[in-house]
Amino acid sequence: MTLRTDPLRVALAQLNATVGDIEGNARKIRDSIARARDEGAQLVVLPELALSGYPPEDLLLKTSFVDAVGEALRDVAGEARDIVALVGFPERRDDVYNAAAVLADGKVAAVYHKVYLPNYGVFDEQRYFQAGTDAALFELNGVAIGLTICEDIWEPGPPATTAALSGAQVIVNLSASPYHAGKPLEREEMLVQRARDNLATVVFCNLVGGQDELVFDGCSSVVDQDGEVLARAPQFEEALIVCGIDPGAAVAARLRDARHRNAVRRERESDSPPARTLASVSVPAPGSVEVGGPVAEPMDEDREIYSALVTGLRDYVDKNGFEHVVLALSGGIDSALAALIAVAALGPERVTCVSMPSPYSSEGTRADARAIAQNLGAELLELPIDGLMKVYDGVLEAAFDGREPDITEENLQARMRGNIVMALSNKFGWLVLTTGNKSEMSVGYATLYGDMAGGFGVLKDVFKGRVYRLVRWRNEQEGRELVPASVLERPPSAELRYEQRDDESLPAYEVLDAILAAYVEEDLDADQIVREGHDREDVERVIRMVDLAEYKRRQAPPGIKISTRAFGRDRRLPITNRFGR
Amino acid sequence: MTLRTDPLRVALAQLNATVGDIEGNARKIRDSIARARDEGAQLVVLPELALSGYPPEDLLLKTSFVDAVGEALRDVAGEARDIVALVGFPERRDDVYNAAAVLADGKVAAVYHKVYLPNYGVFDEQRYFQAGTDAALFELNGVAIGLTICEDIWEPGPPATTAALSGAQVIVNLSASPYHAGKPLEREEMLVQRARDNLATVVFCNLVGGQDELVFDGCSSVVDQDGEVLARAPQFEEALIVCGIDPGAAVAARLRDARHRNAVRRERESDSPPARTLASVSVPAPGSVEVGGPVAEPMDEDREIYSALVTGLRDYVDKNGFEHVVLALSGGIDSALAALIAVAALGPERVTCVSMPSPYSSEGTRADARAIAQNLGAELLELPIDGLMKVYDGVLEAAFDGREPDITEENLQARMRGNIVMALSNKFGWLVLTTGNKSEMSVGYATLYGDMAGGFGVLKDVFKGRVYRLVRWRNEQEGRELVPASVLERPPSAELRYEQRDDESLPAYEVLDAILAAYVEEDLDADQIVREGHDREDVERVIRMVDLAEYKRRQAPPGIKISTRAFGRDRRLPITNRFGR
Repeated sequence: MTLRTDPLRVALAQLNATVGDIEGNARKIRDSIARARDEGAQLVVLPELALSGYPPEDLLLKTSFVDAVGEALRDVAGEARDIVALVGFPERRDDVYNAAAVLADGKVAAVYHKVYLPNYGVFDEQRYFQAGTDAALFELNGVAIGLTICEDIWEPGPPATTAALSGAQVIVNLSASPYHAGKPLEREEMLVQRARDNLATVVFCNLVGGQDELVFDGCSSVVDQDGEVLARAPQFEEALIVCGIDPGAAVAARLRDARHRNAVRRERESDSPPARTLASVSVPAPGSVEVGGPVAEPMDEDREIYSALVTGLRDYVDKNGFEHVVLALSGGIDSALAALIAVAALGPERVTCVSMPSPYSSEGTRADARAIAQNLGAELLELPIDGLMKVYDGVLEAAFDGREPDITEENLQARMRGNIVMALSNKFGWLVLTTGNKSEMSVGYATLYGDMAGGFGVLKDVFKGRVYRLVRWRNEQEGRELVPASVLERPPSAELRYEQRDDESLPAYEVLDAILAAYVEEDLDADQIVREGHDREDVERVIRMVDLAEYKRRQAPPGIKISTRAFGRDRRLPITNRFGR
Repeated sequence: MTLRTDPLRVALAQLNATVGDIEGNARKIRDSIARARDEGAQLVVLPELALSGYPPEDLLLKTSFVDAVGEALRDVAGEARDIVALVGFPERRDDVYNAAAVLADGKVAAVYHKVYLPNYGVFDEQRYFQAGTDAALFELNGVAIGLTICEDIWEPGPPATTAALSGAQVIVNLSASPYHAGKPLEREEMLVQRARDNLATVVFCNLVGGQDELVFDGCSSVVDQDGEVLARAPQFEEALIVCGIDPGAAVAARLRDARHRNAVRRERESDSPPARTLASVSVPAPGSVEVGGPVAEPMDEDREIYSALVTGLRDYVDKNGFEHVVLALSGGIDSALAALIAVAALGPERVTCVSMPSPYSSEGTRADARAIAQNLGAELLELPIDGLMKVYDGVLEAAFDGREPDITEENLQARMRGNIVMALSNKFGWLVLTTGNKSEMSVGYATLYGDMAGGFGVLKDVFKGRVYRLVRWRNEQEGRELVPASVLERPPSAELRYEQRDDESLPAYEVLDAILAAYVEEDLDADQIVREGHDREDVERVIRMVDLAEYKRRQAPPGIKISTRAFGRDRRLPITNRFGR
C-alpha cells in the first residue's frame, strides 16, 4: 500500500461519562460526533469505555449490562456519517473485551481489543476482560491509524510499535487515566516519547470527571512525531477540541530516519505478525488544514489538586442525585478547606455548615466557623451539644461504674455530632461531607461514626501539610482572608477535652506527613524510613498507628484519590495482620 | 527412570495460620513437621502460603515482608530432617511467586511456582504474583510426586495432567480454599475426578480458620486413583492426620489403562515440555504401611454454616487481640442468633449483651432479650434510651422547624444505641458485633452508624430465612428453647416506631431471599428473575433498593463469607452507578 499524506482534522471529545448511564453517555457521544463533524473533523476520538463509564467494576459481570451497552453502540454508530468515530465500550463476543469501535458510514466498521489489562493500584481489569492479542490499524482516507487503549500506550513496545512499524502514521489512544498529583505532566512526557520513538502523531483522548474515589483529569492531547504538543484540552472540564494533523510529516521523518527502516526490517524478520488492517474508510476530504489546535495551559500543582478535589466532589454529588450537602464546620483548618471546596463545587446555596460547640470549644474556633460560613455565603446552623453530653453520661453511669473519663467521652462527643449531621441528612436528603485529612485517616485520629460519619470524605487523600497549603493558596487567589489567619495559626486540636493539642501526641505535621508518605505511599519499612533521617521512635509509633487504624479506614466514606496511593481500592491491606506488631 | 512403588505415610498439617504472623506460623509449621515425623510420616504437606498467612494482600508489595518470610523459610527448613515437608510461601526471585518449597535434609531442596493465579471473586492473585510456567515433580524414595498449588488443581489440564503424564504417582495440592456453603463437597468431588483422570493419589491440604471476611474450612483429604477417599481431616479445626498411601496402585492402574498410555504418547508427541523433576530425596523408609487414614464425617449443611460463622468470628476476635465482645440484644431473631454464635465462639464469659429499650420496644421483646442472655449465661446490661430521644428532639427542634417525624427519628434511635455500644467498646476495649443479616444489608434495612456500628458483622452473609433455620437447628441440637419460640414466631420488626413490621414494606422473607439470591449472587436481571416466577413489581423494587444501598454496604464492618457471592471484596460495584435507575 502507498500511504496517503493528506492532512486531517481530528477531534478529541473529552467527555465526562457516568458509570451505568448508558443512555446519557450515548447521547453525549452522539452529540460529540455531530459537533466534531460540524467543526470539520474527519476523525473524532472518545475516551476508553466512554459508553459504559469507567470503571464499571462488577457491572461487567452482568450480561444485561454488557448487552445493553452493545445495543447502544449500534445506535451511536448511526451518527457516524461523513466522519469516523472511535468509541470505547466493553464488547461481549466469546468473552468480554475492553474495546474500541471504529464507527463509519453509520455502522461498526471494526473493533480493536485492548492488549494490556492493568491489574495493579486501582485497576482490576484482569478480573473482567479477556486480553486482545493483535496490534491493529485502520485506514482513513488512505492514512494509516494505529489503535491503542490506555495501558497499551504506557508499554514502550507493542501494540503501538507494531502498528507504527506496520505503517501507522497516527496512533490514537482512548484512555480513562485516573488522576494523581503530577500525573498529567508525567503522562504527557510519556506520550511525547512514544510519538518520537514511533515517528508518529499520537492522539490521546482521556476521560474527565469524578467516579467514586477516582477523578479523571482530561488533559487530552495531540503530539507530533517530533514530540511537539500540537493541541491540549483543558484539565478537569469537558471539552471538544479540534486539531489539524499532517500524516505526511511522519512519512517524511521515516524516510530520513534509518533507525525506523531497520526496525521495520527486524520486525518483518521476526515471528510476530504485523498489525492487522481492520478497515479502510473514506470520508469527505477537508479543504485546507492548518496543523495544530488549541493548547491549554497546564495548571500549577495547587490549582491542579484543588481542581481535582472540586471536580471529584461535584461529580459525586451530582451523579448521585444530591441537591445539597452538609458539613460540620468546627473552626479548624480541615473543615474550612472542605467548606471552600464544597462551595467551589456546588455554590454556596447548596452547602449548609453546622457548628456544634461543646464546653470544650473555644470562643476563637466558634467565631472562626461563623466567619468562614459568612465569607463563603453558606448557611450556618449552630446546634450545641452540651445537653446531650450530660444525658449520655447519665445513661452510661451505672455501666461505667465510676471509671475516669477517657477517650470514650471524647468519641461520644464526636458521635453526637455525627448523629446530628446525619439527622439533618435524613430529614432534608442532604449528603454529609466528612472533613478528616489523610494524615488523620492514616493514624486513626478520627472517630468512627463521629467525624467519620458521612457519605464523602473531601480530604481523605490530602495530607495535613497540603491542607494548610491549599487554604493559603485559596486565600491568595481570593486576595482576602476567606479563611481567617487565626485558623491557619492556631495549633491543631480536636477540642474534645480542655487544651487538647494534636501535635502533643504526634510528631509535627511536616514530620508526620513525610513518614506517612514513605510508609503508606511507598511501602518503605521502619529501617528505610529511619535512614531517610527520621527519629526511630516516631517512625515506629506512626507505623503502629497506621496498621492499627486499618479497621477504621475500612468503614470510611469514599474520597477523591490525589496521591499515588490512596486508601481504598488502591491500598488493600488485611485488618487481621500481625506483621510488624 | 523406574518408578518405585513402596508405600509411604503422608501427613496433612491443616493449620490455622495468621496473616503477617510469620514467627507464629513458622512455629506451627516446625511443630507440624516434628509431629508428622514422630507419627512415622515420610512427607508432610502444609497449606498454600502457610508461612505468610492467606491472603496477605498488599503486604506482598512490601519487600520487608516478603524477605522476612524468606528468612523464616530457611529457618523452618532446619526442622525437615528424615522427612520431607512441602510448605507454601511467597517467594521473591526476579519477581514474587506463590510458591511451594520442598524442604529436605534441613534445606530448601526445590521450589515450585503456582501456574494458575485466580483473579476473580475474592481473589486478586494477578495483582501480586508472577505466574509459574512449568509443571514439576520431585522424587521421594523413588516415588514421583507432582506439585500443584490450589487453583492449579481446579484446572482439569496442566500442570496436574503434565505431572501425571510425566510419571507422578501422587499429586499434592497445597491450598487456601475459602469456604462457601456446599463448597467442601463440591471440592472433594473435583479432587475425586482429578485422581481418577490422572490415575494418581491426590493429597490435598487446606488452610483452616478465619481471616477477615474469609473462613477456610480445612477438610483436607487423600483420594486414591480409584476416587476413594482414603482420609479426610475434620472441618473448621486444626488437625494433623496421617494416611498410608500405595504409589504402586497408580502404577498398576496405569498398566491396565490404555487411555493413560495413549495420553502419554500424545503428550510426548506434542510441543509441551514434560514436568521437570526438581529434586530426588530419600528419607528412612517406613516399616509396614497400612493404606488409609482417619476419615472425618462431613458436616450437614446447618452445622457446616454455623461452624463457619463460629470459626470466622472466633478467629477475628482472637487474632485481633480482643478479650471480649458486646452486642445489642433486641429480643429479635438476628441478635439472638448472633449471641448464640458469639457464645459458641468465645464462651459466655467473653460476651456482654446490651438491651436498649425505647418506648417502642414491646414487653415481649424485652423479656425475650433477658431470656436469651440468661439461657446463654451471658451478661446483660439494660440501658434505656428514652431520655436521649427527648434531648435530641430538643437539639434539632429549631433546625427541623416543625417537620413531621419520619425515618430521621427512627435512624436517630438506632444511632443512640450505636453510640452506647461504641462507648462500652471504648471504655472496656470490647469488640462490637453487629447483627444485621444479608437480606437487610442487601436492601439497606439497616442504619449506618446505628445498628451497623461495630467491628464485625456476624450475619452479614446470612439471609433472613437461613437465620430462622439456624436458630431452629440450634434449639433442636440443644434440646430446649435456647431462643424462645416467641422470637421465632413474632413478625419481624425493627421497633423504631409503633407497630412497625418489616414485611409490610418488603415481600415476605422467603420471596425476598429468593430475589436477592438471583440478583446479588447470580447477577440475573429483572426479566430473568421475573421468569423464575416472581412478581415484577417486587423484583424491580428489590433491585432498586439493593442498588441504592451500595453506599451503606461500603461502610459496613466485615463479616464471614458463607455464600458464593458475599458483599465486600467478592462483589465490587460502584456507588455512583445509574444502570437500571
